[in-house]
Amino acid sequence: MSLTNATPADAAKAAKLASHTLATLPTLARNDALTAIHSALGQSKDEILAANARDLELAKKAAENGELSLSIVSRLDLGKKGKWEDMLKGILDVRELEDPVGKVTLRTKLDDGLNLERVSSPIGVLLIIFEARPEVIANIASLAIKSGNAAILKGGKESTESFVAISKVISSALEKSQVPNTAIQLVTTRDVIPQLLDLDQYIDLVIPRGSNELVRYIKSSTKIPVLGHADGLCSIYLEHTVSPDLAVRVVVDSKTSYPAACNSVETLLVEEAALETILPPIAEALLVKGVSLRCDSASKAALTSKLPTHNSTILQDAEEIDFDTEHLSLTLAIKAVPSMADAISHINLHGSHHTDCILTSSSALAETFMSSIDSAGVFWNTSTRMADGMRFGFGTEVGISTNKIHARGPVGLEGLMIYKYKIRGAGHITAEYGEGEGQRSFKHEKIDL
Amino acid sequence: MSLTNATPADAAKAAKLASHTLATLPTLARNDALTAIHSALGQSKDEILAANARDLELAKKAAENGELSLSIVSRLDLGKKGKWEDMLKGILDVRELEDPVGKVTLRTKLDDGLNLERVSSPIGVLLIIFEARPEVIANIASLAIKSGNAAILKGGKESTESFVAISKVISSALEKSQVPNTAIQLVTTRDVIPQLLDLDQYIDLVIPRGSNELVRYIKSSTKIPVLGHADGLCSIYLEHTVSPDLAVRVVVDSKTSYPAACNSVETLLVEEAALETILPPIAEALLVKGVSLRCDSASKAALTSKLPTHNSTILQDAEEIDFDTEHLSLTLAIKAVPSMADAISHINLHGSHHTDCILTSSSALAETFMSSIDSAGVFWNTSTRMADGMRFGFGTEVGISTNKIHARGPVGLEGLMIYKYKIRGAGHITAEYGEGEGQRSFKHEKIDL
Repeated sequence: MSLTNATPADAAKAAKLASHTLATLPTLARNDALTAIHSALGQSKDEILAANARDLELAKKAAENGELSLSIVSRLDLGKKGKWEDMLKGILDVRELEDPVGKVTLRTKLDDGLNLERVSSPIGVLLIIFEARPEVIANIASLAIKSGNAAILKGGKESTESFVAISKVISSALEKSQVPNTAIQLVTTRDVIPQLLDLDQYIDLVIPRGSNELVRYIKSSTKIPVLGHADGLCSIYLEHTVSPDLAVRVVVDSKTSYPAACNSVETLLVEEAALETILPPIAEALLVKGVSLRCDSASKAALTSKLPTHNSTILQDAEEIDFDTEHLSLTLAIKAVPSMADAISHINLHGSHHTDCILTSSSALAETFMSSIDSAGVFWNTSTRMADGMRFGFGTEVGISTNKIHARGPVGLEGLMIYKYKIRGAGHITAEYGEGEGQRSFKHEKIDL
Repeated sequence: MSLTNATPADAAKAAKLASHTLATLPTLARNDALTAIHSALGQSKDEILAANARDLELAKKAAENGELSLSIVSRLDLGKKGKWEDMLKGILDVRELEDPVGKVTLRTKLDDGLNLERVSSPIGVLLIIFEARPEVIANIASLAIKSGNAAILKGGKESTESFVAISKVISSALEKSQVPNTAIQLVTTRDVIPQLLDLDQYIDLVIPRGSNELVRYIKSSTKIPVLGHADGLCSIYLEHTVSPDLAVRVVVDSKTSYPAACNSVETLLVEEAALETILPPIAEALLVKGVSLRCDSASKAALTSKLPTHNSTILQDAEEIDFDTEHLSLTLAIKAVPSMADAISHINLHGSHHTDCILTSSSALAETFMSSIDSAGVFWNTSTRMADGMRFGFGTEVGISTNKIHARGPVGLEGLMIYKYKIRGAGHITAEYGEGEGQRSFKHEKIDL
């Protein structure tokens, strides 16, 4: 890893060249580099934590002056219990994942002695733009090396001292490995993001990890493909046959277990037939948890009549905008719909195509819902918060994508891969194939993988 | 299919809504629609050919005035021998392909009663911009319907009458099918491309089929992902151990079998050790076929000394720009390189990442070459012109992609698919999983597909 003072263009070009070497390294060489990084970081704990303490001090001052939120200060702290150990363990976890490079996913005998193979290969150069959490740099460097991709990292400025310290350690560890030093580069100079976003000749994929605003800005500022999601406006459709207990559990978990997460529910669509039966206990449980309910008139009327002990002033009136808003807080918009078809239309129109859920006892309805909803995740009778790479068993994730091409939903190492087609022949030429006399035909026999 | 007079935004919105219905149709319903289109076109041959004749008449006049090339006029003609029959057969060929929708590509038991599935699903709305060949509209409509994608088609203006006639027939055929009429829309009004390219809220993927200039313009004018390639600058590396006969066959086929194709070779890199042994017979065979050879000094010197019967004036001096040019004609740039490493660097720097080939008797060198070259196709001892969806056995192709994400190389129906994650649960919530006491753990058991 180099801590680069190069121009963005030179840094990106160097990364591209390094990516060609990295792509050819065997599994062992990439894993060895991760082992080296792990042990070098272990040996340099003191100096990295000292650098982190300097970041923290500045951040605390900025927080005192009201220039920085306390939650950012808290995320900066590498000395927090377990954080350092988790960072180091994460490197070894990535090392132990199955190698995503070089997997043969298609094999066809085109003709005698002429064989086609589709082989997974790294994408090339990733640009990863992330916010202040300093441990992310080790995580991302590991993912890039494991997947055979070069990476340019641009982290939040509040962690600069920590990033620089970590990057120096990673850099000297890589010196002793087969991974080229310029394969992983940290860019610390400010205001380079627009220049980097312009380098589509060198950079193949941008992965922003951060706020909606960051993602939206990046998506609108580059020709390079961007992997990620801006919004997570997830909905649950409550059908009248579901067990009230199950519905309460799932809605409460979806809304309250981590309201700031992209996979938390924001809109509850209630079948009219469930308004007076299943909605009231759900609302009651949510109110107990401190959730603000923004209700349309039908759902408010039902709740007001069924929950007389709650002062109706607790129930807020939803405005149209509530059904297009990712609240990211303990706020839930509630709307009554005549049928599942209306719920599907509402979600496809107002949702962010991230994760949506149906609560029903009918498998037929559930299957129709899951086929009809145009989202990365379509769940039946489970929390929207299950949308997560770790929970899916992917080991790690680089983010959750609402893109419609390449990778959708939680993206693990597989999402950092593309493929190439290899053909091994023996002088075969196209002019000999065709429909005329004496022409050959392709055999196109699938070969088992 | 509707022949739309709607604004681009209304057309795209209608396509999006239709895509949600189309995505849920079973295989049979999509196949039946293709059968209906096939038979309706068969019954309307006379009126379509009459419309085509009107296009042809206008085009011939334009050609006489020098406003249109004769090759475009020739491509317009649907009455040419076999063309009509091929168009109709193409619809049935697509119908017979395996259904790409609903394939389960991952199945994991997350926990008892909690199962994750990754299921292939259509991308959504495709915008396909193509040039004048009128039969393409039937081909693209078939691919879109088969893959469950809605499509907006914008064809070259020279075929307008043919397109309108075909689209009316397809439209009335779809009326009797379950495919919504607005799933396939033809836009004929001019100058709508910039507006369509702006509709990233409705359109999920743009597929340009046409000239480099068209593709380049589209790539630089939209936030919507674009699938395709601008350039096809393919190279062959000639290593000294290859059999001269094999090398002659492959290079001649790669250069001369269809010089205007994107998969034709443009640059021949010659290992110095092969300059006086294998290059001369190749050059001789190419010269016989009328190929202009643009040689660097080393290759020119070798050929001049070895082919004294050819006046050295036949051999042209290469300029730097020749190694960055897709000639698309009977012109080949030739350059000597000391070793394969130089060839690899040259190709990764100057090539277009489309298709590149090594000619060698050494499988070790071939494997290194194929791993190191960053291209969609990496071939050993076979013609670059093998890079083709039909030859690969994909049945059909929507184009050849040099993208680094989603789909690379010849793109068949699979390239028009994405996936969604379905989870079927029984009230499972995330708060119950974790490391604390009494917390559950995910099982993450792979289930066979």
